[in-house]
Amino acid sequence: MTPGSDVVALLRAALGDRIDTTAAALDAARADKSGHAASGTPLAVVNAAAIEDVQTTLRTASATGTPVVTRGAGTGLAGGANAGAGEIALSLRAMDRILEVRPDDLLAVVEPGILNADLNAVLAEHGLWWAPDPASRAISTVGGNIATGAGGLLCAKYGVVRDAVLGVDLVLADGRLLRLGHRTVKGVTGLDLTSLVIGSEGTLGVVVGATLKLRRLVPGDVCTIAATFADVRSAAEGSAAVTASGVQPAIMELMDAASLAAVHALLELDPPTPGAAQLTIQTDGPAAAAEADAIAAVLTDAGGAVSVSHDRDEGERLLVIRRSMHPAMETLGTTLIEDVSVPRSALPAMFDEIARVERVHGVAIPTVAHAGDGNLHPNFIFAGSEVPPEIWDAADDLFRAAIRLGGTLTGEHGIGVLKRRWLADELGQDQWELQRQIARVFDPHGILNPGKVFTP
Amino acid sequence: MTPGSDVVALLRAALGDRIDTTAAALDAARADKSGHAASGTPLAVVNAAAIEDVQTTLRTASATGTPVVTRGAGTGLAGGANAGAGEIALSLRAMDRILEVRPDDLLAVVEPGILNADLNAVLAEHGLWWAPDPASRAISTVGGNIATGAGGLLCAKYGVVRDAVLGVDLVLADGRLLRLGHRTVKGVTGLDLTSLVIGSEGTLGVVVGATLKLRRLVPGDVCTIAATFADVRSAAEGSAAVTASGVQPAIMELMDAASLAAVHALLELDPPTPGAAQLTIQTDGPAAAAEADAIAAVLTDAGGAVSVSHDRDEGERLLVIRRSMHPAMETLGTTLIEDVSVPRSALPAMFDEIARVERVHGVAIPTVAHAGDGNLHPNFIFAGSEVPPEIWDAADDLFRAAIRLGGTLTGEHGIGVLKRRWLADELGQDQWELQRQIARVFDPHGILNPGKVFTP
Repeated sequence: MTPGSDVVALLRAALGDRIDTTAAALDAARADKSGHAASGTPLAVVNAAAIEDVQTTLRTASATGTPVVTRGAGTGLAGGANAGAGEIALSLRAMDRILEVRPDDLLAVVEPGILNADLNAVLAEHGLWWAPDPASRAISTVGGNIATGAGGLLCAKYGVVRDAVLGVDLVLADGRLLRLGHRTVKGVTGLDLTSLVIGSEGTLGVVVGATLKLRRLVPGDVCTIAATFADVRSAAEGSAAVTASGVQPAIMELMDAASLAAVHALLELDPPTPGAAQLTIQTDGPAAAAEADAIAAVLTDAGGAVSVSHDRDEGERLLVIRRSMHPAMETLGTTLIEDVSVPRSALPAMFDEIARVERVHGVAIPTVAHAGDGNLHPNFIFAGSEVPPEIWDAADDLFRAAIRLGGTLTGEHGIGVLKRRWLADELGQDQWELQRQIARVFDPHGILNPGKVFTP
Repeated sequence: MTPGSDVVALLRAALGDRIDTTAAALDAARADKSGHAASGTPLAVVNAAAIEDVQTTLRTASATGTPVVTRGAGTGLAGGANAGAGEIALSLRAMDRILEVRPDDLLAVVEPGILNADLNAVLAEHGLWWAPDPASRAISTVGGNIATGAGGLLCAKYGVVRDAVLGVDLVLADGRLLRLGHRTVKGVTGLDLTSLVIGSEGTLGVVVGATLKLRRLVPGDVCTIAATFADVRSAAEGSAAVTASGVQPAIMELMDAASLAAVHALLELDPPTPGAAQLTIQTDGPAAAAEADAIAAVLTDAGGAVSVSHDRDEGERLLVIRRSMHPAMETLGTTLIEDVSVPRSALPAMFDEIARVERVHGVAIPTVAHAGDGNLHPNFIFAGSEVPPEIWDAADDLFRAAIRLGGTLTGEHGIGVLKRRWLADELGQDQWELQRQIARVFDPHGILNPGKVFTP
């Protein structure tokens, strides 16, 4: 077989109706939730139902030199799973079984296509949960969470995906299956390839299974603090003061005035006070009430108008405002959702930089932040389906400001295609080159998600 | 320059009195705390005082094809830092500065040679701590903790080293300096090389700095539960029952009868009840007292004789018995301390396997376990300085049993030289080969700690 072979015919012969070449399926595989779509249309979508299907697909792809783009539910925000001309889209969405739940060992073994929220619904019956909670948890897969190294709202207290995965099963570009990691709390046998795979965005192999580290459901109350500030910088200073005070909230979310206005309009609520920004904070566990009182005192001292609720349902209603950000932005136009992260003490300075970028570039940048961990999502709004050059200029200015403040390009969304041109700026050329060589060890012929993460 | 050049003369010309070739220094660099020593004597010890010294050493080593063995305080237990004939021992012990402590960002930037306990003494003044607490914390370096991916007593509740490092500065074999990782809670820019370096035992580069993720000192009480069981299997079942009950202790240590007898003799305490095994458990934080009561109830139900202390000093006195294990073993002979880890539910079965290995091979294996996370330290005692073949046969039997139970060869000590011959058994040949190729990307000419981790 050579690159000239008809890879689709070969796949169909091997996998039958798991190969989908309908126009609707091919078109859906071009895009994710970033607003970006691949140019051209992939050759086929493979709907893998078992590890062997993935191995067959990769053997065939290797033999024919065909690029493979692995997909979960397509909820990524960096274009990392978008499949285009000449590529095979390999969907793992149908591999969604929970193979094992072990309350006594606090672990679960799952297939990659299960939705985060579906997994957690089952785990809750055992008094357990998997902590990673990206805002997309109701619609994103565990495999996608692993591929992007996803974060979420609870990370400062409960960690990111990398803290919650013990092992992954990985199919290499040539179809071989490796079992990486372990089932134990501790394990230092050889190099930590599990961590290397987490966040590798489909460039090292295809994750076909995962051993997840679970937590017990947190006992006790959930308290919710809402604090309104006259402007976003004051709110950011308030959140930094909470972190510096030593109390650890479970969730600490910040919304600026433009974000609040858009969400209030979407939810048909009374318009918020012009210019005002909001912190929504939750505490949990045995000391939740005392911690909520301590946080309320810090925020009042910082100039906030503060209210505290000890009612779990009332807290969920307050968080709905934050969770409605993405749909609210979609009502304004096409959105480029950015994802810079800075040390928590630099949050006020980063909001100053966002205001400067708005002023200098003449763009509006509604911004929400996971303020508890310093991760900001500035939203650039534009018309049409391609990010215009002037928006990229503003984003470029923003990225460089984040890096200057000791931060990073992406806290939880990944590089994909949308941020690959800035990757070497943050890593340095030497590290960029080293990373690329490591990817080549896994995938010598470069058929796994080519053009993603690393520039071609 | 060629491999024939006089590398020591070159190093002395560049680094002057940082080069030590006294017999005492060379001999000390041959060994760690494993009881194993390298054959032959290294060419020189370089006492690096700055990153530039490390870069100079590695450039010179690369130019002359000389192997380099990086060392901290030499407290390893797998021979990973032992330097032998034809090798340069590169000591980072003198690079022991704390460069930055940021209570507001919960991070510290340190040089690698600082002792874990010295760092924590300084952090305590800020109300902070770095959670990794290997039993060697008073004598081991942070750089060594990172190189081995160290664990300790608190891991089930507070994590291992991998959970507590945000970034490392790494000098490559050719002398280039890379800055890996980030200063932010979240960060997914490119591949996670920081995690890859943690636990890589000197094979990928030399860690010359680290950005550490800190915690606030835990407020509230510390309660200590001591529970005595008629035999070690019952104690292991008791610890598994605690984990399964959903209460998370900070520390849960198990000592078998032979361990208790040796420690009691060392500390001149009354001899323990023959055959009895002990669990020593601590709870901390706001719910410490309630959790201690819950654990006491579980252990009483499991047949233990239980006492609870709410006094922090009394708790420390009880833990001294556990912390005296290593010196107590040294009174019995030379010790091969093993380090298998199993899923927590398999702890009773693993103790059955240890009893079987003792019976079949006719050896005594005093064993302690970090029962809270399933990590066991079976101690093989022998005379002389080389592990006899019959001891290796028994250890081999033990390793295979741990892997059969879903466990791993090494929970926290690493592979070094002592376990490299079992590495491929656990990883599989394909993964072993892939790991070796990745190491070669960092170190193309194989001058970094050759013969460690991977068999030559």
